[in-house]
Amino acid sequence: MDPGSTLSAIASQAGVSVSTVSKVRNGGTDVAPATRARIAALLRQHGHQVVSARGFGVVDMLIGALHGPWSEELLRGAVEAADELGVSVLVNTAADHAAYSRWLDRAAARGTSGVLSVLREPSEADLRKLARAKIPLVLIDPPREPTAGIRSVGTTNWQGGLTATRHLIELGHRQIAVISGQEGVWSSRARLEGYRVALAEAGLPADERLICHGNLSPDGAHDVTAVLLDMPDPPTAVVAGNDGQAFGVLQLLGERGLRAPRDLSVIGFDDVPIASWASPPLTTIRQPLAAMAATALRLLLSGSAEPHHIELATTLVVRQSTGPV
Amino acid sequence: MDPGSTLSAIASQAGVSVSTVSKVRNGGTDVAPATRARIAALLRQHGHQVVSARGFGVVDMLIGALHGPWSEELLRGAVEAADELGVSVLVNTAADHAAYSRWLDRAAARGTSGVLSVLREPSEADLRKLARAKIPLVLIDPPREPTAGIRSVGTTNWQGGLTATRHLIELGHRQIAVISGQEGVWSSRARLEGYRVALAEAGLPADERLICHGNLSPDGAHDVTAVLLDMPDPPTAVVAGNDGQAFGVLQLLGERGLRAPRDLSVIGFDDVPIASWASPPLTTIRQPLAAMAATALRLLLSGSAEPHHIELATTLVVRQSTGPV
Repeated sequence: MDPGSTLSAIASQAGVSVSTVSKVRNGGTDVAPATRARIAALLRQHGHQVVSARGFGVVDMLIGALHGPWSEELLRGAVEAADELGVSVLVNTAADHAAYSRWLDRAAARGTSGVLSVLREPSEADLRKLARAKIPLVLIDPPREPTAGIRSVGTTNWQGGLTATRHLIELGHRQIAVISGQEGVWSSRARLEGYRVALAEAGLPADERLICHGNLSPDGAHDVTAVLLDMPDPPTAVVAGNDGQAFGVLQLLGERGLRAPRDLSVIGFDDVPIASWASPPLTTIRQPLAAMAATALRLLLSGSAEPHHIELATTLVVRQSTGPV
Repeated sequence: MDPGSTLSAIASQAGVSVSTVSKVRNGGTDVAPATRARIAALLRQHGHQVVSARGFGVVDMLIGALHGPWSEELLRGAVEAADELGVSVLVNTAADHAAYSRWLDRAAARGTSGVLSVLREPSEADLRKLARAKIPLVLIDPPREPTAGIRSVGTTNWQGGLTATRHLIELGHRQIAVISGQEGVWSSRARLEGYRVALAEAGLPADERLICHGNLSPDGAHDVTAVLLDMPDPPTAVVAGNDGQAFGVLQLLGERGLRAPRDLSVIGFDDVPIASWASPPLTTIRQPLAAMAATALRLLLSGSAEPHHIELATTLVVRQSTGPV
């Protein structure tokens, strides 16, 4: 069979035009990923070589640091959504600028349908390079204020901080501390502002001594909690900046022979898979990490510039680390 | 410039022969990944299309379920090793046979340098399909007894069980319980046998009432611990089957107003990144997950059938959940 007639046979088998088959064979980019994968498989079955170009069905996921129990949830969401769309997910880390450049050069050379960037915002130079290589980009959980220039997917951090604090107020708490992440991190700031609003709507004064900052890990929260408990009028509840911080609060309690929620109510943020491993299991604000990654992947492949920012809803997950005052 | 002279220019720039450049351009498989990536990038810079074939620099990582804090460590190890070798890691999940087949068809269609299979052993039919598609395979943490037929990388589970139990014996414990994973899981069985040997070498009798089984999650261990503590002569220490089980032991202690190590010493297995988040931080047996994945990746790309099984060493990490009897 001559090549031309094989192409028409494949076209009719795949239910597409011969020109679409030809496009896929030559590495053209304007064929939907799932269709492309189906046609490419048929082409290869018939002995054709298929050019690997942009859009050959691989999406790059670039994670700032693969270290933290929530990255696996994001990855799971991206992999499951990619499976449905017939594309595959390449995972990369980029702890520093050199690693980012190395990834970018490699991705440009082999081709990619786009990049999901987690916890890392490309520099202006990186953005120019991405644009030159025509590599689409969607940020997940952008570290700074979202802008119209870069598409991004996050969660309702502000409302989450509000919900967490309201939950404690409804339990009768009036002395509520908050441990926030580093100042300047967009999600941490939004959560903190939600805390302030919940106090205000309940007519409670904001006591600046109860507003603390620490890195988003157990260690920082552990030390901050010691300071809070040594106050003459210590708080009865704490809103942690994330689940890692909540684990640190529980560690300090354990060291002092205290226990949540009897001695201090603690609420986390994220609902990482191991939030239920805590002693006691953590009450927390769930951000739908897997769904965020899936949404980002679909946005990436949609080719649309709008909407430029999507926030998926947070939900309160009540376990056992919070209770009545 | 005609195509032939571009190829020689690229060959001299890359320091390889023209036939190597031509091989990469045509999707040949016998060029080292890093060299291939360099040549492919030059070819594309000069406007050549490079055929995507087996060995275009992508390795598939197939994870049974992306759910559990240790999968991220394996992934990190694979991604870092891949970065050094100039290849990329595609992540896939295969919770069931249908998902596995879907992945296999797609991988065969687009090409892959090989597959790292985590916590999932392909069926005989899968193995035949892999062999037909000439896709190399390395298992990580094989669920059953390693055989010469499939290359695999694991850790010294038997010695780890021995080391964990010796640590408790050295602290003066004589009544030591063990919570093992499901019977029939290779790594769980090896850890349990290590426990038995440690008791025997210390001249301690094995009390079958202290040998328990549960799934490798907090829940199972939580319930087993309640039974152990209700014995007339309860154990003073527990060897958990993994860190998840150790978290479950700590949860039960907390519910009863007890605390490790004062009331019960607990040692885990794995040293997942969040082992230090426990209250108190977990003493555990570290399996070098990232190094295991990196070793598996190098073995996969080496093309060698030997060695067919590698075990990387476990180490004791002493934190605060174990103490003198």
